Formats: sequence, C-alpha cells, structure tokens
Amino acid sequence: MTIANAALDALSALLGPRFTTGMAERELHGGSETFHRAPPPEAVAWPASTAEVSAVLAICHQHRVPVIGWGTGTSLEGHALAPQGGLVLDMMKMDRILSIDAEDLQTTVQPGVTREALNLELRATGLFFPVDPGANASLGGMASTRASGTTAVRYGTMRDNVIALEVVLADGTIIRTGTKAAKSSAGYDLTALFVGAEGTLGIITELTLRLHGQPEEVAAAVCGFPTLEQAVECVTATIQSGIPMARIEFVDADAARAFNAYAGTHLHEGPHLMVEFNGSPTSVQEDVARFGDLAQEFGGTGFEWATTAEDRAALWKMRHGAYRACLALRPGATSLTTDVCVPMSQLPAAVAAAAADIKEVGLIGPMVGHVGDGNFHAQMLIMPGDAEELARAKGVATRMAQRALAVGGTITGEHGVGLGKMGLMPAQHGAALGAMAALKKALDPLNIMNPGKMIPVLA
Amino acid sequence: MTIANAALDALSALLGPRFTTGMAERELHGGSETFHRAPPPEAVAWPASTAEVSAVLAICHQHRVPVIGWGTGTSLEGHALAPQGGLVLDMMKMDRILSIDAEDLQTTVQPGVTREALNLELRATGLFFPVDPGANASLGGMASTRASGTTAVRYGTMRDNVIALEVVLADGTIIRTGTKAAKSSAGYDLTALFVGAEGTLGIITELTLRLHGQPEEVAAAVCGFPTLEQAVECVTATIQSGIPMARIEFVDADAARAFNAYAGTHLHEGPHLMVEFNGSPTSVQEDVARFGDLAQEFGGTGFEWATTAEDRAALWKMRHGAYRACLALRPGATSLTTDVCVPMSQLPAAVAAAAADIKEVGLIGPMVGHVGDGNFHAQMLIMPGDAEELARAKGVATRMAQRALAVGGTITGEHGVGLGKMGLMPAQHGAALGAMAALKKALDPLNIMNPGKMIPVLA
Ligand SMILES: Cc1cc2nc3c(=O)[nH]c(=O)nc-3n(C[C@H](O)[C@H](O)[C@H](O)COP(=O)(O)OP(=O)(O)OC[C@H]3O[C@@H](n4cnc5c(N)ncnc54)[C@H](O)[C@@H]3O)c2cc1C
Ligand SMILES: Cc1cc2nc3c(=O)[nH]c(=O)nc-3n(C[C@H](O)[C@H](O)[C@H](O)COP(=O)(O)OP(=O)(O)OC[C@H]3O[C@@H](n4cnc5c(N)ncnc54)[C@H](O)[C@@H]3O)c2cc1C
Repeated sequence: MTIANAALDALSALLGPRFTTGMAERELHGGSETFHRAPPPEAVAWPASTAEVSAVLAICHQHRVPVIGWGTGTSLEGHALAPQGGLVLDMMKMDRILSIDAEDLQTTVQPGVTREALNLELRATGLFFPVDPGANASLGGMASTRASGTTAVRYGTMRDNVIALEVVLADGTIIRTGTKAAKSSAGYDLTALFVGAEGTLGIITELTLRLHGQPEEVAAAVCGFPTLEQAVECVTATIQSGIPMARIEFVDADAARAFNAYAGTHLHEGPHLMVEFNGSPTSVQEDVARFGDLAQEFGGTGFEWATTAEDRAALWKMRHGAYRACLALRPGATSLTTDVCVPMSQLPAAVAAAAADIKEVGLIGPMVGHVGDGNFHAQMLIMPGDAEELARAKGVATRMAQRALAVGGTITGEHGVGLGKMGLMPAQHGAALGAMAALKKALDPLNIMNPGKMIPVLA
Repeated sequence: MTIANAALDALSALLGPRFTTGMAERELHGGSETFHRAPPPEAVAWPASTAEVSAVLAICHQHRVPVIGWGTGTSLEGHALAPQGGLVLDMMKMDRILSIDAEDLQTTVQPGVTREALNLELRATGLFFPVDPGANASLGGMASTRASGTTAVRYGTMRDNVIALEVVLADGTIIRTGTKAAKSSAGYDLTALFVGAEGTLGIITELTLRLHGQPEEVAAAVCGFPTLEQAVECVTATIQSGIPMARIEFVDADAARAFNAYAGTHLHEGPHLMVEFNGSPTSVQEDVARFGDLAQEFGGTGFEWATTAEDRAALWKMRHGAYRACLALRPGATSLTTDVCVPMSQLPAAVAAAAADIKEVGLIGPMVGHVGDGNFHAQMLIMPGDAEELARAKGVATRMAQRALAVGGTITGEHGVGLGKMGLMPAQHGAALGAMAALKKALDPLNIMNPGKMIPVLA
C-alpha cells in the first residue's frame, strides 16, 4: 500500500461507505476482459458530486496519490488499469441527466450516464445521441477515449458531439470548457483537449452533448460480396459518389461465421457490408436505389433490407454483438483487437494486408470495421496466459499500425492508447509527443492523473 | 527599436530581401480597417518554407523577439497587430497547394493559400472547401481564428474542417499534429489546440483540410419577413424540423437598405432570410417546398429563387459584400463588429435586445448573421477618432456579450479574441482561463508568440 494513511483517512471521512480498500471491489476495478493485466488499485471511491470529486482530487494531490477514472471499464487497451497503484474513481454514481434542451438539440449529463440510458430517456423527444461503441459505455468514458462507432460516418465521433465539459483538474480546481453555443472562437479549445485525454488531464464531471433528430425514415440492409477488396471498394465508391450513409460496416468471412454461430443468422460465409440510410422517405428511397446500383457493380448479392424497426434492431444488435460472437469462435479465448484507421484510398490494401498477415501467423482474427471512416478492427483470439500466441498477435498489431502510419493513417481510430498503444506513440507523433508531454506537465505537474498512460516519457 | 541588432543581422542574413525594417512595409503590416490601433511592428519577414519559419523562430526565441503571424490581415479584432512590438511573419509567400487527394476528400496546403485560390484550383475536381468568411482570407489565418461563415450550419467551421497541421513551435521545433485518417484516438488533440490559437502557440506552416463534393443541385433564395422575431423564429423552426440547410443567413432592415444602396438590389427595407439547399434534385425540391411552407407560417413573403449559377453567385456576393455595403451607409466610418453566438432557443431574444440597445444609444448598426448557428453580427458604424462614439459602441458590444454569456452563449462565435475581446475572457472562462494560461506557458514559456493576446494575465 503506497497511499499514505492520512490520505486514506481523509478519503474515508469524506466519502464514508463510498470509499473502500476491500479486495473484492479493488479486483472488480482492476480487471479487463482483454489480455491487459495490472495489479488492482489500492482503493476505490464512488463520488456523488462534482464537489466530492474536487475534494478527492485535492486530497490525492496533496498526498500524491494516482487517480484513475472509471466509467464502465469497457475500454480495450487497459486504459483504466492502475499500473502505478492508486485510487480508482468510479463515476457511476454520477448518473443523472441534468437537462434535455430539445430546442437547442443539446443535453447536459453527468459522466456516469450510459449511452443506452440517455437514448431511452430521449425516446419521447424525437431526438437521439448517435455515438455508439458496441458496449453500453459511460458518456464520461466515451468522451475520454474519443469513442465512436457505426454512426461516425454520418454523425461524427465524440470529438464532434461534445460541446462543453465540466472538468476537475489534478489539484481539485473545477473548470468549465466550451459553452452551449453551436460554435465559439473564444480561446483555446479545452473541450477538445479533454476529449480523448483518457483521464490523464482531469476528471470529467459534466458533459453537454449534441443531439440529433430521429430520422423520419430508416432503411438498413446487409449484402454479400465475392471478395473483401470488392466490398471495401464499394464503400469508397459510395462515399465518393456522395450518397449520404448513416452507417456502413464491413464484416469479413470469419465474422459472418461467428454471427451465424452466435446469433443464429444465415449469412453466407464471405465478406459483407451492413448499411443504413436515414432521411425523408423520398431521399432514403433514392439513396437505397443508388447504393443498390453501386453494390451490384462491385458484385454485391443477396441484399436483405430490414424494413421494420425490429428487423433493423436485430441487424444492429448482431453487429454490436460482434465482439462476443467472435470471442465465442474460440471458447475460453481472450482477444487482442486492433484499431487502425487509414485514408479511404488506402483501405482496400490495408484490409487485404492485415488478412494476409493474420493468416500467415496462423491466428483466428475475424475483422469488422467502420469502413466509412477507414477504420477497421481485427479481433485476434488468443488463449489467456499463452505468451507465444500473444507475441504473434502483437506482431500482427504492430505491423498493421506501421503500415497504417506509412500511408498517413493512425494507430487507433477510436479505442485509444491505454497501455496497449503506448509503444507506438513515438512512431505516430514524433516531436509532437514532446508538446503533449509539456501540456500534461502543465495541467498535472505531479503526474497523479492516470499515470503511466499516454505519454511514454512520463510512464 | 527593441529587437537586438544581433537578431536583425541574423534575420537579414537568413532571408535577404524577404526581411525588412522599412517603414512602408511595417505600416502595411501594422494596420487594421477596424477601429483597432497599435504602433507598427519593428520588422516584417516573408518566409518561403517551413525550414525558414523554424530558423526565424529559433533566432527570435534566442533574442526574445515577439513574433506575430500574418495572413491577409482581415481579422476584425486587431489579432495581427503588434502591441508589444516585434516581427510580423507574413505567410503569403507560402502559398502552394501541396496535394489534392480527391479520393480521400482532402487537400494539403501551405498557410498562405487563400480560400478563393483553393476553390479555383478545386473547380475541376468536383470538390470544394466550404468555409467562407466574407473576406478572401488565408487558410492559415482562418485556422488560427477558428473562422466560419455562411456554410457552417451544414459543413462546420475550421474546427471541423482542419484534419492535420504542421506547426513550428516558439523555439523552432517543427511538429505534425493529426493524421490523414478521418478520425483518431491517439493522444491529445493538438490540431484542435492550434486551431483558434490566433498564433499564440506556434506558426502553422501546413494544413490538411477536409473537402466536400460539389452538390449536384443547389437552390438559393431570399425572402422577406414582417419582423425580425418572425425571421429568427422561422430559422429555429426550420432547424428543428430537420430540413438540411446549406446556408441560412439573416439580414436586418438596415443591412437590406445597405445592399440596395451598394449593390443595386431591390429588397424591401425590412428583415430577410437568405437560404440555400444542396443535394440531389429530388431532395432539394423537397427541402425547398418544406421551407417554403414554414416561411409562410412565419409571414415570409416575396420569395426570389435564384436558379442559375449566376443568380446564386450574385446573391452570395451581395451577402459577402455586407461588410463594405454597411460601411458605405456612413461615408468615412470605420466599424466595431460584434460576434456573439447563443443557443438557438435564445436567438430571437438576443437579436431583439441588440436591436433595441443599438437604437437606444443612437448608433447605426446594421445586423447580419449566420443564424443557423445562433451567431449574428451588429456592425456599428463609428467615425475614426470619435472617442465618445467608440465608447457608446463598446458599451453595446459589452452588453451583447454579457447577455450572451448569461444564456450560455459565447462572446465570439467566429471572429476570435484578438485585442478586442481580451477584457471579456475572464467573464466567459472563469477558472478555465488559468488552464489556458498554463498551456500557453507550457508551449511558449518566453511568451514570444503574438504576446499581449488571448491570455489577459500574460498581456
Ligand atoms: C464489446 C465491445 C465493443 C466495443 N466497440 C467499440 C466501438 O465500436 N467504438 C469504440 O470507440 N469503442 C468500442 N469499445 C471500447 C469501449 O467501449 C470504449 O472505449 C468506451 O469509450 C469506454 O467507456 P467506459 O465507460 O467503459 O470507460 P472506461 O473503460 O471505464 O475508461 C476509459 C478511459 O477513460 C477514463 N475515464 C472514464 N471516465 C472518466 C471521467 N469521467 N473523466 C475522466 N476520465 C475518465 C478512464 O480512466 C480510462 O482511461 C468496445 C468495447 C467492448 C467491450
Ligand atoms: C469583410 C469581412 C468579412 C468577414 N467575415 C467573416 C466571417 O463571416 N466569418 C469569420 O469567421 N470571419 C470573418 N471575417 C474576419 C476574417 O476574415 C477572419 O478572421 C479570417 O480568418 C482572418 O484570416 P487572415 O488570413 O486575414 O488572418 P490575419 O488577420 O492575417 O490573422 C489572424 C490571426 O491569425 C494569426 N495567423 C495568421 N496566419 C497564421 C499562421 N500561419 N500561423 C499562426 N497564426 C497565424 C495572426 O497572428 C492573427 O492572430 C471577415 C473580415 C472581413 C474584413
């Protein structure tokens, strides 16, 4: 235990039963369902208000206790693990929707609200919040990893949908970033700085989010392709021809097989695209027809249009269940999931090279992807504790990242850095990593906010 | 002259004829067509490459010479003035379009390329760059003020359309921010930090920008309204009903009068909306019909649809000429232009209060605005040197800003802080201004980058 007794006492006095050093909670907040491992944190706290978060950070700052934010713990690179010990701050008691400003297409929420809880609440308003990582993650966690999902091609990522934040800085100072106006040129874009900072610069205690009107008409479909290249080329062609898609997802043969086994679907075991169009009835009809023509050009077959809300829900449930469906391909396995994102023109080659590499090293690695953004994932299935398999998977992941960087892409499109991508940060950023380190030092000089993450030289 | 002779010699040796301390160039780079005034800078340089910018900054860093970036000098708050002396870095010799990546919907340009030059070059590709401040500004300047314009309601601001940057930091270090991928979760969002930083954190030497497909069909119109409130309420209703506008601009009675006098138009002298719809022929037809119905509900009359490209160009030329047309209402006048931006639901009240305030103090202050974002400008016409008039105009501007803040808005939607809005920064940001100051110190510890701007405590 490296937390000073005085700090433990102060935290306990502040939070009472909402603070613990019990092993059960420490272990619950020290795990990851991916291959990442670290010792559990030394304590866990559940603050209930911004004032409490501020008081906790003031104590931890005084005693130099590492503080690691925790939403739903679904991030895929060990982001919320505590490799240097310290206190995990579980934000899930701060789960109130503070306001829904329908006229302004905005809502203000606490960070522990999950995306599903928010959308349930929004249902009656005709509005929705579009960002949808597969997991039912917390909005604070999603902002912190700059998450996205199937709808980013139309509605953007967390970068585009967070308008303003309340943040508690390392020393307990409470600040507000951004305003409720649609745009602003008043000073540095602090909102953008905290979005994607993975809890290394402060704790998000409130978020103002952009809402969107529920589309009048929605059409979704799944469609098979003879080869992976043709499927991906169909995506590029669709984007270039300006057909406005709400979602366009790629699923390879292994993933289709996983869906069939796990969700009882009957997809042919080859590459597929899953698409959705939103708009007015006439515009959706037009988009569907134009996409149908294009898909045919690239050999697309077996179109199944989901016209009812239930059929569409089933379709996207299948897609959102991909992570678990793919895990089930190899019982007992855990996974290493890659997340490169490349310029659209580079996507067919990147996907093909990844497929060949995975085959070459003899792993099972189904691929799915938000291909409308140039972002795709290989989910390599490895047995827990098998160091040799892990090394092979890491080899593939590193080569995928290097190839992405070579063509102007990024090592992570949406999952973030966490522990897993630290080693690749210098290759991606070069001298800019020095600027990031300077910013981190400016806002967290004692390095107590999620230490050991993001900035390799400070780890 | 506060620049050390050693620095002058080094700069002169580096840049030869592209460096001067001659008064003519200093005065050209020390002016503003607004009411803002400062002594001219002590020297002007025209770097021709990133390497030269880096060498210039290394010299200025060593000798603590203030460095002020300069694009086309059209910013409206004295951003590029040199109140603490130093060197103006005119970026207009770095005006090459480095690549147009049509497949990836991107272009990479040097900062001295203007938006009109870029769009001219793009014409043959079927793509365009949408951000359009009225002036033919430089893309480096537009990024630095986080500019926007009539199309932000559809295509976003510079925040949304800058993907990656090359930046030279205060000490000459060259960094690259962002990648060419559509999204990334790899580390702090440095791109967003430099966009809107007004040259206080570094000099932008390269920009990768998002391009958009030229719409198949475009329809634009101007339409009169009985009152300002009805016009603005029509905008809110249009947005809430999800009709996708490409532009929606507000013009008040004084501005309509200015257009008629300056551009020879025949608008009735009351409030107007100028709108544009982009898309496929069917979708545009649908949008036009739906908007027409809505406008009628709010008393809209005298619709004039500009169907030919020439008519549309004339319409937007009139709008882009608003600044000069309004100046011409009072020969010899200069102007103080406000720039508040509020949540949509607050817009009717904000516009009405501003109109009443301007009337109350007895100034001429025509209003135009990008009302789809909740952003509008009052251009108060004042006589150069008339301190009493200036004080009255400043009073209105301050009250507009205070009212905007009170309803969750911002003191500047797109023009930026410059010298003019420094005094309002504490009211807008509170403790967050301390975080901004910390970031500034981290990246520019000697405070040589556009000193005296953005952060009041450092000024
Ligand atoms: C099945 C499955 C599918 C997924 N699909 C996607 C996908 O499509 N797209 C995608 O982007 N991600 C996806 N993910 C990853 C994950 O859901 C996202 O990273 C999500 O944003 C994490 O949210 P969380 O609430 O679980 O955060 P956590 O995992 O709890 O935390 C993530 C990081 O944010 C920090 N943090 C959490 N809350 C706060 C706060 N309030 N203030 C400051 N820092 C905080 C933590 O310290 C940590 O660094 C998937 C995960 C799973 C398991
Ligand atoms: C008639 C008229 C209409 C206008 N309408 C609009 C409008 O609708 N929307 C809008 O947003 N603005 C508008 N503006 C304001 C102005 O056009 C914008 O602020 C524009 O972005 C300024 O670009 P510039 O190239 O002139 O920059 P400058 O005025 O030269 O510089 C602006 C700031 O950026 C810095 N800078 C410039 N280049 C660089 C660089 N390469 N690296 C780092 N810092 C740099 C300067 O130091 C300064 O702080 C209007 C102005 C006029 C005169």
